[in-house]
Amino acid sequence: MTRTDLISLIRSKRSLLCVGLDTEEHLVPPHFRSESHPVRAFNEAIVEVTHDVAVAYKLNLAFYEAMGDQGWLDLEATIAYIRSKGDCFIIADAKRGDIGNTARKYAEAFFDRMEVDAVTLSPYMGRDSIDPFLGRSGKWAIVLGVTSNSGAEDFQFLPAGNGKRFYETVIERTAQWGTAEELMFVVGATRPEVIKQVRDLVPDHFFLVPGVGAQGGDLDAVLDAGMTRNGGLLINSSRGVLFAGSGEQAIPAARKAAQVLQQAMAQRMVAHGILS
Amino acid sequence: MTRTDLISLIRSKRSLLCVGLDTEEHLVPPHFRSESHPVRAFNEAIVEVTHDVAVAYKLNLAFYEAMGDQGWLDLEATIAYIRSKGDCFIIADAKRGDIGNTARKYAEAFFDRMEVDAVTLSPYMGRDSIDPFLGRSGKWAIVLGVTSNSGAEDFQFLPAGNGKRFYETVIERTAQWGTAEELMFVVGATRPEVIKQVRDLVPDHFFLVPGVGAQGGDLDAVLDAGMTRNGGLLINSSRGVLFAGSGEQAIPAARKAAQVLQQAMAQRMVAHGILS
Repeated sequence: MTRTDLISLIRSKRSLLCVGLDTEEHLVPPHFRSESHPVRAFNEAIVEVTHDVAVAYKLNLAFYEAMGDQGWLDLEATIAYIRSKGDCFIIADAKRGDIGNTARKYAEAFFDRMEVDAVTLSPYMGRDSIDPFLGRSGKWAIVLGVTSNSGAEDFQFLPAGNGKRFYETVIERTAQWGTAEELMFVVGATRPEVIKQVRDLVPDHFFLVPGVGAQGGDLDAVLDAGMTRNGGLLINSSRGVLFAGSGEQAIPAARKAAQVLQQAMAQRMVAHGILS
Repeated sequence: MTRTDLISLIRSKRSLLCVGLDTEEHLVPPHFRSESHPVRAFNEAIVEVTHDVAVAYKLNLAFYEAMGDQGWLDLEATIAYIRSKGDCFIIADAKRGDIGNTARKYAEAFFDRMEVDAVTLSPYMGRDSIDPFLGRSGKWAIVLGVTSNSGAEDFQFLPAGNGKRFYETVIERTAQWGTAEELMFVVGATRPEVIKQVRDLVPDHFFLVPGVGAQGGDLDAVLDAGMTRNGGLLINSSRGVLFAGSGEQAIPAARKAAQVLQQAMAQRMVAHGILS
């Protein structure tokens, strides 16, 4: 999906919501367990009730890899189902990062085989681990900048010897390797003041913002810190949507949770003059 | 596999060789292509002729993920085949790194489901991305320290504001989170002077050393810089073994290439008094 199409989608759905399909088989409600593929059936039900308010879906690969080849099939089936619903931006949350020839294989796996729009990448190995994901129209590399977890402090916040923190150097340098048409950054929601500061560094790039909800990030603070005239954010909620309710209430509760998030986003976009 | 068992294996096989099964389907010799699972058949043939001289096998996940669910089955079948050959240390080269609850899923995928001995991890997200892989007897986290690719310069070699380079800070700090019984570091072969310097930082930890052969690392220089009285190194060769010859000669050439590496390693271990 091109940047122009993504921005259109944000405007038409009045939403910056990304739903994270971090589906754990043992957490799937009981009434899905009699299905031949419980995870797939649950994902499809979630997509069915959220796709009008979600612009993006993020599939966390770990949850599928933990189920082996069947997990892989669930992943591919879920992606196909999202595609069948029309315009949604699909992210493989893989956090890959490897040498050039391996990175090319990953780009092939995600972009050509799985046909997702974007893949998350770890910057530690530098440019040749990012390059194979760039230069493909409508495909995106989403590079870890500042993450939402406690361990972010361990290395990302270290001084980088140029008066800047390490994550600032990572973001500034990586932004030189690709355009805002093909490159986004992960910027965690748990530190709104950091979102603001990263927004000043890279005013045009989209940010994928995890950490709202279960991880404690405050939605309005994130929106105020990071929004641009094009939206500029994809704000992810995983557990906050998937497991908003339990049992027979899981799916209606997921819809409600997604709607609440979307409405809060729309309200803030209106307040900032992004939507009328 | 425990550290004691790994050291015994190194001594009995007189080898530090890790064979990297970075198997690309289109590079598999023609006589394997009529098999129902060409990649699996090729991997098994390689393991068959190298397991007496290789202490470890490293499976690069990208190459299997690029083949979808069938790739996943090839991966699991290859691991089972290596296990059937007796004592070999098996590494999932995954370079994963994610927040705590996701990292736990990856640990489950690799250690419990795939039953590998070790998984490679990226340190960018800090301690909670590493912790779930530690504290499990006989299982190992292998954390990226200095990589062998050109992009290593981009971030790993930046000054970290304490008079040290970033990779030094990563290695020193990570070494405090786990013992040398459960934690190794990736240290690329293309910079022997860096191997020597990292060896001084962490004298007891094993290093996984990629980059010998196709990537240009010099074997003797790596051995001299990084060996300890316990061996202390697992030196990986992927393309240099797998694709040492072509067509019908591929498998005999792979054996020969692995033997040449093992013999060079044994000679150097004898010269350093590690083997008699």
